[in-house]
Amino acid sequence: MTDEHYMKIAIAEAQKAFDKDEVPIGAVVVLQDKIIARAHNQVELLNDSTAHAEILALTTAYQFLGSKYLPEATLYVTVEPCLMCSGALYWSKIGRIVFGTYDEKNSYRRSTGTNNPFHPKTEIVGGVMEEDCAGLMKEFFKRLR
Amino acid sequence: MTDEHYMKIAIAEAQKAFDKDEVPIGAVVVLQDKIIARAHNQVELLNDSTAHAEILALTTAYQFLGSKYLPEATLYVTVEPCLMCSGALYWSKIGRIVFGTYDEKNSYRRSTGTNNPFHPKTEIVGGVMEEDCAGLMKEFFKRLR
Repeated sequence: MTDEHYMKIAIAEAQKAFDKDEVPIGAVVVLQDKIIARAHNQVELLNDSTAHAEILALTTAYQFLGSKYLPEATLYVTVEPCLMCSGALYWSKIGRIVFGTYDEKNSYRRSTGTNNPFHPKTEIVGGVMEEDCAGLMKEFFKRLR
Repeated sequence: MTDEHYMKIAIAEAQKAFDKDEVPIGAVVVLQDKIIARAHNQVELLNDSTAHAEILALTTAYQFLGSKYLPEATLYVTVEPCLMCSGALYWSKIGRIVFGTYDEKNSYRRSTGTNNPFHPKTEIVGGVMEEDCAGLMKEFFKRLR
């Protein structure tokens, strides 16, 4: 399966968040071409600023595998991760991170600059289905105003 | 109450982690001189790399207050936060962070350098009961070897 295939599923998760008035970000964890976790942002529902899609997806993946590391897995997420999620992904030792749209305001790069916060073996790919991922975010914040 | 008073309670949490073969880090959230959350690292127990003391304490505090922000609260933690926890603390907009021992290897500074990853209004104080906090960590890692 292609990165686009899994990103579409992450976008479907983001759409669920959108429909519940949550910032529309979705994430999927894939291992050996199987989805082992899918989640969307639930900060408002849970009243919990740590309930980002990536954190919820990682926790689900850990439970599913009974492992606290995911070196063979890929995380698909519709928006470039924030600092918290990047730190969580560092600890996961995840094999690959594929994200949709870049986030100049809230991504980890705001704090890390050119330093790489991920595990040295983690591959990171950005811009997959960027327009669709960005479109949901733009629509959400346009509605808020 | 003094910072030392609450740090002692965070150290008691770290000791609980130590006794369960977890990396001995404890955290306490205080609001208006009341402890609203206390937690220790549970990465091994939960098989979850996100289960750091700070994350668990923040989540408990959010549930307790029914709020996703903690601008009036102080987090006490025995060890300088990692990147993930620093990102979580950023989102919390917490008023103060007081930590015990510095962590040259795993703290957020490894990735952020001289950038401040916290909310601009967050005050950060390090080195409170440093020797006690560091002592537990040293003892733990000495045992592992």
